[in-house]
Amino acid sequence: MPDTAPNSAVIERTSEVDCALDYRLDGPTDFLFQIHALDGMDQEVLRESLDIVPALPHRVYADPTLNHRFLRLHAEPGELTLRYRALVRRRIEPIEPDPAFVPIADLPDQVMHNLMPTRYCESDLLGRAAYKLFSHLAPGMAQVQAIVDWIHDNMDYQIGSSQNTTTARDAYLQRAGVCRDFAHLGVTFCRALNIPARLVVGYAPFDEPPPDFHAVFEAYLGQRWILFDATGMSPLDRLVRIASGRDAKDVAFATLFGPATMTSMAPLISPA
Amino acid sequence: MPDTAPNSAVIERTSEVDCALDYRLDGPTDFLFQIHALDGMDQEVLRESLDIVPALPHRVYADPTLNHRFLRLHAEPGELTLRYRALVRRRIEPIEPDPAFVPIADLPDQVMHNLMPTRYCESDLLGRAAYKLFSHLAPGMAQVQAIVDWIHDNMDYQIGSSQNTTTARDAYLQRAGVCRDFAHLGVTFCRALNIPARLVVGYAPFDEPPPDFHAVFEAYLGQRWILFDATGMSPLDRLVRIASGRDAKDVAFATLFGPATMTSMAPLISPA
Amino acid sequence: MPDTAPNSAVIERTSEVDCALDYRLDGPTDFLFQIHALDGMDQEVLRESLDIVPALPHRVYADPTLNHRFLRLHAEPGELTLRYRALVRRRIEPIEPDPAFVPIADLPDQVMHNLMPTRYCESDLLGRAAYKLFSHLAPGMAQVQAIVDWIHDNMDYQIGSSQNTTTARDAYLQRAGVCRDFAHLGVTFCRALNIPARLVVGYAPFDEPPPDFHAVFEAYLGQRWILFDATGMSPLDRLVRIASGRDAKDVAFATLFGPATMTSMAPLISPA
Amino acid sequence: MPDTAPNSAVIERTSEVDCALDYRLDGPTDFLFQIHALDGMDQEVLRESLDIVPALPHRVYADPTLNHRFLRLHAEPGELTLRYRALVRRRIEPIEPDPAFVPIADLPDQVMHNLMPTRYCESDLLGRAAYKLFSHLAPGMAQVQAIVDWIHDNMDYQIGSSQNTTTARDAYLQRAGVCRDFAHLGVTFCRALNIPARLVVGYAPFDEPPPDFHAVFEAYLGQRWILFDATGMSPLDRLVRIASGRDAKDVAFATLFGPATMTSMAPLISPA
Repeated sequence: MPDTAPNSAVIERTSEVDCALDYRLDGPTDFLFQIHALDGMDQEVLRESLDIVPALPHRVYADPTLNHRFLRLHAEPGELTLRYRALVRRRIEPIEPDPAFVPIADLPDQVMHNLMPTRYCESDLLGRAAYKLFSHLAPGMAQVQAIVDWIHDNMDYQIGSSQNTTTARDAYLQRAGVCRDFAHLGVTFCRALNIPARLVVGYAPFDEPPPDFHAVFEAYLGQRWILFDATGMSPLDRLVRIASGRDAKDVAFATLFGPATMTSMAPLISPA
Repeated sequence: MPDTAPNSAVIERTSEVDCALDYRLDGPTDFLFQIHALDGMDQEVLRESLDIVPALPHRVYADPTLNHRFLRLHAEPGELTLRYRALVRRRIEPIEPDPAFVPIADLPDQVMHNLMPTRYCESDLLGRAAYKLFSHLAPGMAQVQAIVDWIHDNMDYQIGSSQNTTTARDAYLQRAGVCRDFAHLGVTFCRALNIPARLVVGYAPFDEPPPDFHAVFEAYLGQRWILFDATGMSPLDRLVRIASGRDAKDVAFATLFGPATMTSMAPLISPA
Repeated sequence: MPDTAPNSAVIERTSEVDCALDYRLDGPTDFLFQIHALDGMDQEVLRESLDIVPALPHRVYADPTLNHRFLRLHAEPGELTLRYRALVRRRIEPIEPDPAFVPIADLPDQVMHNLMPTRYCESDLLGRAAYKLFSHLAPGMAQVQAIVDWIHDNMDYQIGSSQNTTTARDAYLQRAGVCRDFAHLGVTFCRALNIPARLVVGYAPFDEPPPDFHAVFEAYLGQRWILFDATGMSPLDRLVRIASGRDAKDVAFATLFGPATMTSMAPLISPA
Repeated sequence: MPDTAPNSAVIERTSEVDCALDYRLDGPTDFLFQIHALDGMDQEVLRESLDIVPALPHRVYADPTLNHRFLRLHAEPGELTLRYRALVRRRIEPIEPDPAFVPIADLPDQVMHNLMPTRYCESDLLGRAAYKLFSHLAPGMAQVQAIVDWIHDNMDYQIGSSQNTTTARDAYLQRAGVCRDFAHLGVTFCRALNIPARLVVGYAPFDEPPPDFHAVFEAYLGQRWILFDATGMSPLDRLVRIASGRDAKDVAFATLFGPATMTSMAPLISPA
């Protein structure tokens, strides 16, 4: 069953992240990574380390607004290995039982852009579909919960069914996708209903292999961001957030400029 | 409420068709019209006339398989007016109460191609959506009736919401269209469920202006073609069929090759 | 360099076709095959055999207009193997040096539909692109030759770059595809320029593995169909035609209705 | 001929902006406007005024990074009129003759996101097309100039050819669009070639009516943003910038949440 953020007392969760990424470069390549755990919101990075082999000049910088971190580096042909380890504690506040829909006029300025369509979330194209499916419900939490349920019930989770270019529209049409597509569709339906929404990526434990980064989404209700996961694949309180963004293009764990191929990936997480 | 073909004793309906089309040509233009009432199936053309102004050489020929008629002509710049009048009698057999789904193996050879996707009916792309929406029902009539109901309940009939290039996929995404789009979506869902389906165009009386050609669809059940109309705009027993085809590209009332503009259109029909 | 149909004296080519197809069926499946060599046009089937294992009732029938043959059969779960062998002689007439563009008004009635867009060949959507690229050339052969050259020079032949749902529009956008996509794009550009065009599939020898069915296209010029191949992968005079159709949906070598998987394919051809 | 940014000594241009927008509201509506001239970059707002009828509470705030201004207001059913007037001086520095391509590794962090595809600028989908068209040129200015020329030569400027949902991909396919589409395509090709690019909207004088907001684009070369206009409709040195953003969704002059209709628009500009 789809999962929503926990709903009771303050919960503390401490997790160990151990993320290894290997690349083979056939030519010089620039990388933009987002693999650092967010140090902010309800999350504290207690300890972390980053190993890059071969040792290379690199830069870690934080987004000025949302504080998530980027790693930039330039590498020459050959092998490249990254290993990021972190101990992260989340302190999860309870969500009030029925967070209110925030009328447009009351949205904070900096949240307004989370109502707009983006590359992967064509909320303009799916506007009428969202309206047909969810407008009979009370604006806000009831709609988002219905969106999560609809996605869970009507979409097939199927590895290989989507590609790097698959958008919410595509996923909605083909009725299949992976976590990223489920999250994009959630974001898209929310925005179409005038509920600000954004994509969240992070480390999450899965019962079933293979290990992978996880994508979920946040909707803005009751004047705060609330996490939702339409896949129900991993408990939301175990998620270690890397970043949130408009859609997957904003928060890709790796963006490559050059002829490089990922040869292995192991973004592991375990309770600490 | 959506309409389906009548379901009782033999019905006879005689209609008077009076169709006027006007064009302005800014250059030499070739026309391919399909405006002649079909003389075949349950329909008999008792009397007809065609006036073309200015008088021009033209050719009327019939499709070798389905017998619908085409009118071809080449016209020079200036005004062109067509007027087609016909008296047509339909003799509508009752449909058996529950026509059976025809297994693929039992379909006639010449019907097989009505299972394939076409320009406007991407049944391959909407396959999983069709399955999610209708596969819990008994194959055949129950599904087609559910398709008609779904389209009627979930699509907005909205003039101007679609264009010449709008396909079933587009209409499904935008949840709006005109009769052509409704029919294309019906055809598409049927094909995705392995029920042969095709588009039907004809003359139909509407309560509300403006007069226009009508598009509905046929599904192949119980070893025959059965008419359905998801718009519910016009009684099916009053339809005078022009042609059936794979989709609207096959049965457009006018295909133009040249710089011509339609200046008025009045495809009228009335009980005789 | 792209190949066009031969241009001199009558050529005779005799080929041996040996096509083996293997399937694994996880449930009952209906098949519609098009693997028989065409017996007609410039081609004569001197000898042929079809072996189906296990032995199953099946039907071979010919398209009433174009004469290509279909094989229909229904199979139960398990293995299914087909082997089609044929000895085929082509007698290729020379093409006149510059076959004339046929004005719309002079096209035979039965060719008209080859001007229309289809599922894989959206000539309506690529109309202006075709016009921008090719309208400065004399209508007809010069344009088709320029189309073949443009495709050859501007598209990457790349196995895996396209899928079952890839259309000419998609291929044009991504500038990559396989023989089917190259042929669809050729068909599309031709139709957009008011030159009737259709897809042709057949057996063809390739220098490089893997063996596969081949797709090329035909344009209607000088009141006849002329073959073109934008891939330049195989000499056109060695092609053994299976069928021609509106696009790949019409002439797929196998259309499956059921949970079957092709486990191997070897459509071999060699000079006899 | 397409225009590029001026290339000589410092130029000063002072313009008078007088922008009137009228709406009819059939229900309560929230508005997000971007009509204020940018006070920053090479541009100084010497004087400005904003009149809203009826007088309504509203908020003007600036983007924290790029400094362009938003106007938010909530209005009840009825008429709404905005009038924004400003006196704006630009001081345009000469562009060095051949600004260098900036390697990815040398791009400022805050510019990196201008390499990513967005809702209207699918640089991922047009990557290979960009490569085929422009990769033979030296990276940087030569490519951007070739992009501007290609768009100018290969796209039809045609009012009504595009809609609110038209993207760079759509415009590229249909080979037609308006200034927004031309700019989106410029942005898209640049990003595909690893040149950061963004959309710029502003007030611009046109020789031909109707007056409208103008959209152009900026490419990041020589460690600065340089303006380009593929339409050639208005001299770039007369543009009064409102905002720059990822694409038109970021910098729409008006985003409406509610049943309102624009009844007239006059974004006038004249030399002061």
